[in-house]
Amino acid sequence: MTKKILYVQTSGPETPERLYAPFVLASTARAMGIEATVYFLAKGILGIKKGVPATIKMGNFPSLKDVIDQAANAGVQMMICAQSAQLWGTKARPEEFEEGTKIVGAATLNDLALEHDAVLTF
Amino acid sequence: MTKKILYVQTSGPETPERLYAPFVLASTARAMGIEATVYFLAKGILGIKKGVPATIKMGNFPSLKDVIDQAANAGVQMMICAQSAQLWGTKARPEEFEEGTKIVGAATLNDLALEHDAVLTF
Amino acid sequence: MTKKILYVQTSGPETPERLYAPFVLASTARAMGIEATVYFLAKGILGIKKGVPATIKMGNFPSLKDVIDQAANAGVQMMICAQSAQLWGTKARPEEFEEGTKIVGAATLNDLALEHDAVLTF
Repeated sequence: MTKKILYVQTSGPETPERLYAPFVLASTARAMGIEATVYFLAKGILGIKKGVPATIKMGNFPSLKDVIDQAANAGVQMMICAQSAQLWGTKARPEEFEEGTKIVGAATLNDLALEHDAVLTF
Repeated sequence: MTKKILYVQTSGPETPERLYAPFVLASTARAMGIEATVYFLAKGILGIKKGVPATIKMGNFPSLKDVIDQAANAGVQMMICAQSAQLWGTKARPEEFEEGTKIVGAATLNDLALEHDAVLTF
Repeated sequence: MTKKILYVQTSGPETPERLYAPFVLASTARAMGIEATVYFLAKGILGIKKGVPATIKMGNFPSLKDVIDQAANAGVQMMICAQSAQLWGTKARPEEFEEGTKIVGAATLNDLALEHDAVLTF
């Protein structure tokens, strides 16, 4: 049966070195025949706001936007925690975030954590 | 068989946006019929010190104290890592922490991680 | 069958309180008959650079170097993410890191996460 890995992104643009890992690992997982989901919560939702990934670039890596697009093209699913938007006093509207993302509730993260074979948090 | 999720809190009061998630998710888990445990270690033990949660409030959320009490009432278990107190040069005395918490050793976290069906770290 | 726990270190020397936990837990795991691996990525690789652990000491704990040596002697495996070195614009050369570590690729972390019975991230 196909294995599944869930990557949870809790960190935001102030720690750019934490933003690449979930996408690099998820793209690698897809190339290994593993299903991969990235879930964004807390400050993690700030790094997937529309336009933000294009402004982030570190070391020898392409921009975060390129790395995200590569992951999306490889079939990586991306989900955004609706409740986390409340932390910043806003609603989570789909048009605020990069394309290919889906807004879901906190209950979804519990379900995802139980359905996936492994969870890695960043 | 009842599923179990372990939430590990390694972050403290200087990143309040990371403190809500384990309790919101754990309360949601309980409403879904899932067993839920929150384990505090490293700076995580500073955010559960008696009196601290009442001082934390973010966005549209109630105070952290209210969110913790709701989780405790829903049957969420809360455990504090004794060794983490050594990091700050103190002993972990039960009266230092919010009610409903239990002080345990590092070995317990290994056991909990293996006994639960999923682990989420914050 | 022997249980296995994977500890992922994503934090670096600027948060020394996060550096002890994987080694303390991994040494404890070994004493419990559990296989233990520590994987370093993102800023985590900066805390395992040769000479750095000897400079880190917190509270009532011995130096991080002593805690790492104890873990290595107990049979804890330590792996360093090659791609993370790219974040800092360098190559990951084995001689840059503490002895007993092995440099591996990102795909290895996906494999490790699936092979271990539990994953804890710091």
